[in-house]
Amino acid sequence: MPTRTLRVDLKERGYDITIGSGTLAQCPQFLSERCGTSHVVLITDSVVDELYADAVGDLFVDAGLEVELLVIEAGEESKNAETLIDLWQTMLAEGADRGSVVAAVGGGVVGDIAGFVAATFARGVPFFQIPTTLLAQVDSSVGGKVGINLPEAKNIVGAFWQPLGVLIDVDVLSTLPANEFAAGMAEVVKYGVIMDLPFFEYLESHVEAINARDSEALQYVVERCCRLKADVVEEDEREESGRRAILNYGHTFAHAFEAATEYGQLLHGEAVAMGMVCASRLAERIGMIDAKSTERQVKLLEALSLPTQPLEFDSEEIYRLMWHDKKVAEGKLRFVLPNRLGEVILTSDVKSGDVIAVLNGQD
Amino acid sequence: MPTRTLRVDLKERGYDITIGSGTLAQCPQFLSERCGTSHVVLITDSVVDELYADAVGDLFVDAGLEVELLVIEAGEESKNAETLIDLWQTMLAEGADRGSVVAAVGGGVVGDIAGFVAATFARGVPFFQIPTTLLAQVDSSVGGKVGINLPEAKNIVGAFWQPLGVLIDVDVLSTLPANEFAAGMAEVVKYGVIMDLPFFEYLESHVEAINARDSEALQYVVERCCRLKADVVEEDEREESGRRAILNYGHTFAHAFEAATEYGQLLHGEAVAMGMVCASRLAERIGMIDAKSTERQVKLLEALSLPTQPLEFDSEEIYRLMWHDKKVAEGKLRFVLPNRLGEVILTSDVKSGDVIAVLNGQD
Repeated sequence: MPTRTLRVDLKERGYDITIGSGTLAQCPQFLSERCGTSHVVLITDSVVDELYADAVGDLFVDAGLEVELLVIEAGEESKNAETLIDLWQTMLAEGADRGSVVAAVGGGVVGDIAGFVAATFARGVPFFQIPTTLLAQVDSSVGGKVGINLPEAKNIVGAFWQPLGVLIDVDVLSTLPANEFAAGMAEVVKYGVIMDLPFFEYLESHVEAINARDSEALQYVVERCCRLKADVVEEDEREESGRRAILNYGHTFAHAFEAATEYGQLLHGEAVAMGMVCASRLAERIGMIDAKSTERQVKLLEALSLPTQPLEFDSEEIYRLMWHDKKVAEGKLRFVLPNRLGEVILTSDVKSGDVIAVLNGQD
Repeated sequence: MPTRTLRVDLKERGYDITIGSGTLAQCPQFLSERCGTSHVVLITDSVVDELYADAVGDLFVDAGLEVELLVIEAGEESKNAETLIDLWQTMLAEGADRGSVVAAVGGGVVGDIAGFVAATFARGVPFFQIPTTLLAQVDSSVGGKVGINLPEAKNIVGAFWQPLGVLIDVDVLSTLPANEFAAGMAEVVKYGVIMDLPFFEYLESHVEAINARDSEALQYVVERCCRLKADVVEEDEREESGRRAILNYGHTFAHAFEAATEYGQLLHGEAVAMGMVCASRLAERIGMIDAKSTERQVKLLEALSLPTQPLEFDSEEIYRLMWHDKKVAEGKLRFVLPNRLGEVILTSDVKSGDVIAVLNGQD
């Protein structure tokens, strides 16, 4: 099976992402090439456990490794402090120590909380990611952001903790529910809008193959997204220079939408899809882009079965929730806004009236 | 007021430790020279709040900074996951964001938990330490170890998070209870045993001045300990090479003593004093040092009002608890043992029978 490997170059924290079809079978070899441990704490959720994680655990056992399988409830609601404490205590009870490694098999929730457990157990142990959702493959694979939610704010607690390696098998996407697949595609579209017009055009012309989950198309899409994100993260690992902030296109809105629905009703990608359209409309409203650039995004997102209109939110409440977002720096709300398809800028120079008008769907 | 400043050289994470008498008054200037923030989250405990932290908060306010004062219950029992979650949630509720800084005013418990809050809130914010116990001044000031306890193991959850600066005022030691002052001196004696015979001899000959809390003697002691620890940490920031492990002299025993008493009965330094004597007796038992080297430690520790005999522990239980210590690497218990006063080695080559015999006080 041919695989594609790309390198995320973060000096001594650099690592490989290997992408292919049927690559799950290579898990034990991938890990043992990068880490000498004999004790693997495999963290997954209740859905992925039955589909893949239990089988991955068996592969590790067959390879002679000692494995503890820790299963959290599936869903964003599990990404909380109580689950975090449970995982810490279970690891300790199962005899994990600083010589153990954590492997996350699952989507973004599993990757984020397992990564934070790895960053903090025994002051940090190595971490591998085997992402099983499209969103996790194109987003969580690169960047090292790990953490949990508090009831009042998403991802407000966490760390930067780079994995030792990421192994991606696009075949696992065949079992992904349609809405989760679509949600992952929202982040894929985002990369096109923020930094790669040709990729955006590739997506426009390959909607059918993508929706059919064609393996070749998916491998290309995942690789391109990981490469684009890696280019950004390599320049700005800890989100300090502002460069990395462009990845938050649509997210200032999206996080508020998710908070308003208490992280239960909307998938992250669905919130991002709506958030990107809001951000693009905001850019229109202040004269940065034309209406056609927004409409191309709306058309592509809709072809991918994504929502493009905000729900019936209270716009004042959404605006207030935006201020809880951790990207509020020095008392200013910052927005990532497109100035053409394929390029965005970061700005704090936005009037509250314009934000609320966009939320209210005004022209 | 003349002050002493030493540099902990950790490349881009390097920082200054300033030591003096009456230096608390310089807090706002010390912080603003190193950080451009206007929002300080000051974390302290219920004892230090009344003594110093409230006054330090006023100094920051007078200097034009916005200050939130977060007070935890005094004592090791507060260094837990529940307090951690409270601090995260209170910071969020008080409007802290990634532009805020955390300043810890207090002893080791405050420094450890406040540092872990700083390491994890908004994926990491800057951190200042104003240690107010002798133990915190000579131990937590250097090394970047932050974290919390779980009920079953001390410091098992945490991170390495270096401060932007440490400001030490030895005058605050005048209000320190006698047992806490003595507990700090246990770590001071440790530095002499593990790496500096002349400093050990200085301590033997200055017991009276130290017990009288003479300002000049204390400034010298604190500076020397910080310099010695910095030398070690600069070589091995993340405890990877084994070099840093020498700082754990007496600690494999001590952590088990503390766990056996549920972190309530013994001060950390008291446990370390007993642990050092046990480690030295273990070294004697396996022929590494002579009895006189142990007796000099016992005599010095007793002159400093420290316990040198383990309590009435169940030695099998203590031995079992040692295995929960996070320094258990690859299934082996490691000990730091002296081979003369001023030099220690790291070894896993110790028989359980010898450890238990030492715990039982057998010759």
